[in-house]
Amino acid sequence: MTDLLEQLRKAVGDRNVLSGAAVHTDYTHDEALTATAVAPLAVVLPSSTEEVADILRTASQLQLPVVVRGSGTGLSGGCLPVSDGILIAFDRMRAIKEIDPENQVAVVEPGVTLEELDGALAPLGLIYPVQPGEGSASIGGNVATNAGGMRAVRHGVTRHHVLGLEVVLADGTVMRTGGKFVKSSSGYDLTQLLIGSEGTLAVTTEITLKVQPRLAEAATILAPFATLAEVALAVPQIVSSGVDPSILEYIDVLAMSGITASAGLDLGVPDEIKAAALAYLVVVLEGTHAVRVEEDVDSLATLLSTLGALDVFVLPSGAGTALIAARERAFFVSKAAGADDIVDAVLPRAGIPAYLARVATLAGQCGALITGCGHVGDGNVHLSVFLQDDERRHALLDTIFETAIAAGGAVSGEHGIGTEKRSYFLDTSDTVNLELMRSIKRVFDPLGILGPERLFDTDKATA
Amino acid sequence: MTDLLEQLRKAVGDRNVLSGAAVHTDYTHDEALTATAVAPLAVVLPSSTEEVADILRTASQLQLPVVVRGSGTGLSGGCLPVSDGILIAFDRMRAIKEIDPENQVAVVEPGVTLEELDGALAPLGLIYPVQPGEGSASIGGNVATNAGGMRAVRHGVTRHHVLGLEVVLADGTVMRTGGKFVKSSSGYDLTQLLIGSEGTLAVTTEITLKVQPRLAEAATILAPFATLAEVALAVPQIVSSGVDPSILEYIDVLAMSGITASAGLDLGVPDEIKAAALAYLVVVLEGTHAVRVEEDVDSLATLLSTLGALDVFVLPSGAGTALIAARERAFFVSKAAGADDIVDAVLPRAGIPAYLARVATLAGQCGALITGCGHVGDGNVHLSVFLQDDERRHALLDTIFETAIAAGGAVSGEHGIGTEKRSYFLDTSDTVNLELMRSIKRVFDPLGILGPERLFDTDKATA
Repeated sequence: MTDLLEQLRKAVGDRNVLSGAAVHTDYTHDEALTATAVAPLAVVLPSSTEEVADILRTASQLQLPVVVRGSGTGLSGGCLPVSDGILIAFDRMRAIKEIDPENQVAVVEPGVTLEELDGALAPLGLIYPVQPGEGSASIGGNVATNAGGMRAVRHGVTRHHVLGLEVVLADGTVMRTGGKFVKSSSGYDLTQLLIGSEGTLAVTTEITLKVQPRLAEAATILAPFATLAEVALAVPQIVSSGVDPSILEYIDVLAMSGITASAGLDLGVPDEIKAAALAYLVVVLEGTHAVRVEEDVDSLATLLSTLGALDVFVLPSGAGTALIAARERAFFVSKAAGADDIVDAVLPRAGIPAYLARVATLAGQCGALITGCGHVGDGNVHLSVFLQDDERRHALLDTIFETAIAAGGAVSGEHGIGTEKRSYFLDTSDTVNLELMRSIKRVFDPLGILGPERLFDTDKATA
Repeated sequence: MTDLLEQLRKAVGDRNVLSGAAVHTDYTHDEALTATAVAPLAVVLPSSTEEVADILRTASQLQLPVVVRGSGTGLSGGCLPVSDGILIAFDRMRAIKEIDPENQVAVVEPGVTLEELDGALAPLGLIYPVQPGEGSASIGGNVATNAGGMRAVRHGVTRHHVLGLEVVLADGTVMRTGGKFVKSSSGYDLTQLLIGSEGTLAVTTEITLKVQPRLAEAATILAPFATLAEVALAVPQIVSSGVDPSILEYIDVLAMSGITASAGLDLGVPDEIKAAALAYLVVVLEGTHAVRVEEDVDSLATLLSTLGALDVFVLPSGAGTALIAARERAFFVSKAAGADDIVDAVLPRAGIPAYLARVATLAGQCGALITGCGHVGDGNVHLSVFLQDDERRHALLDTIFETAIAAGGAVSGEHGIGTEKRSYFLDTSDTVNLELMRSIKRVFDPLGILGPERLFDTDKATA
């Protein structure tokens, strides 16, 4: 242990290796509701790719488990430390290295947060359109989980905006993939393989992102519906209509009252409609021309009326922004209300009504309260599950995930598997797929030191 | 050999194993200009996933090399047979299994061509927007090379539209990846790893594609420029402007005269402008509303004038379509003119002026003629190289590829590496990247039977 700390200090400087009481509790957890905080042997704060390479050479030599942390805003335990390993935290690698408007590219270190990047892009009329609801999240963390967010319905997820990576392999080798080009047919796409690998294949030290012109005009539409099923049935029609919404969310009545109360938000929905509404659809339209956005709002409003909306409210700009901001806090509202776990399964868009109906039945059967909201436009439903008993909750979640998979879906649409959804992932995954993933893991990380207990059972991953 | 044919006949039926004189010359090549036709031991025509699995079990047992062919329209020798192996051709796996408008998804067998799929989607108001210029190309081949095309600047490439695959592994195991959902954070993205792997990792038997609403309104703009450099410099400005072109192509004067002459096309460009123009920019704008497209045409025309266009022609609908169709035949025009090889390096968009200037210098130095056109909006330049002497042409291409890579690019933007660009790919690739790719190849195909001589040197891939 003394040797270890000594070697790490040599790599990053005395002040940048924290151990014992110097490890702030922030480093011991992420935002997953189910995880127990764990103190690592040491927290290491590199300031450069070379220092990361030094750290990994040491870790390889000592066969030391390594977990990587960005801002710690993950929801699946992806950066939960292990007690017999180190935590690399990117607090000191937060440089926006380059913004290149000609190539529509930004190059950042992994610790840069979404709001920092946005602050740098906005003055140039540019935007990185992946916005997973938490501005303090790091780009490195977004790459690790292939983060999504409300705008994925139009703009896609992290995977669609990362053009290249610099990573350090488990043995300390530095590798670059991709570059400032938007497509390539030149060998296997290692960039895509690394995205979403949750720190189990390599440690990302630089990210080249595709950025795009910022759309100046926006409008927010709120449509209450009498039933959740009607909301879910409306979604494919809206997607097919060609209005191309930037945001297409559903919020059930419980989630809506939670987030509006928490934000002190009055959306001006009359009481008689509130009383009849069991679910809300929120649609944001964006464009380059105000007139066009207004026209699209009109045609969408007409469409929503034919699809059974109780009314259609075009929110004033301030209220629209406030509603989206409040929706982004939905997780914290659930957490404050005492939610015991969250589920973010993804499934074919048209399968959502049946899925939500089944979830409601299952919740009723076991006395759980389940509220929901989510990216219904891309089939990614977020459920907050209130059921304290661990065993019964696990059984309920098992059934919910099985339902999603049987409907042609997957365990997580954007949160990732991490440590906390691993058992559900392993239980529901095809064994051929899993075996290939494990073999790929061994290719990148033969000693099995990167991201232990994430995605796989460690013993199997390194067997 | 008799044993082999016997086993294959058992798998697919007597009529569906071709050998000797029964192998039509079409099966012995693709469209690569540099490849020599090769007859395989046998051509096998499966009709189902199960038959493909049977064939691969036989191949594994006999350690028999396997090459896969769709329509044979590839440009890099990706489906060039090997003389000691078999060719699986998907002539009989051409079913469009499902079009699901609610989920905006199409499920197809690999032999389905782009024009067949378009024929099925158009009546539903849907489109698969990846259009690599050759309607007879198969979707399976598109997946193998991660095909792009003129519309990639707006809609992305094959990789961005494949949601899931069914593949057969080298040992005959059938595996499914992804599904009818548009995003996932549930383990490594094997779908993305398989796309663009050129038949070296697995054999694709079913593809789930994302489709989208068809845009009804379109306009084509032709802008002649005095120099190639001005065209290339205009491109980043157009991309930044937010008009979001569906097509953004440059065509140099030689390529333009070749393709218009070949198509018998008169675009109405006055002689004095033709005389002054060394390069043309072609921009297609598409949208849901005619008025908006017209407005965008106006603002783009203004922008083009400030960027140095000699004039701006808004082509009548028929001429616009004819120009795009003629541009799609550019390869065949080059081929008919006797081109000796083609290059489709991709690089950062803003690096194109310097790249093209360097290419012109290199061509001059070695007495080669190089004409060009290409997807300048996404940095993917297509060059036709006229230089008969193999050795000198190889040396020239080596330097051209080195130039592209030094500018931050890659060997191929959409054609793939195949057999014909392999030496350039191996010479210019980073060894760490290559070694990881080879190790991944060994995970999927430990016997090294799939796609021999493609991407890697076979001996190294299986070492």
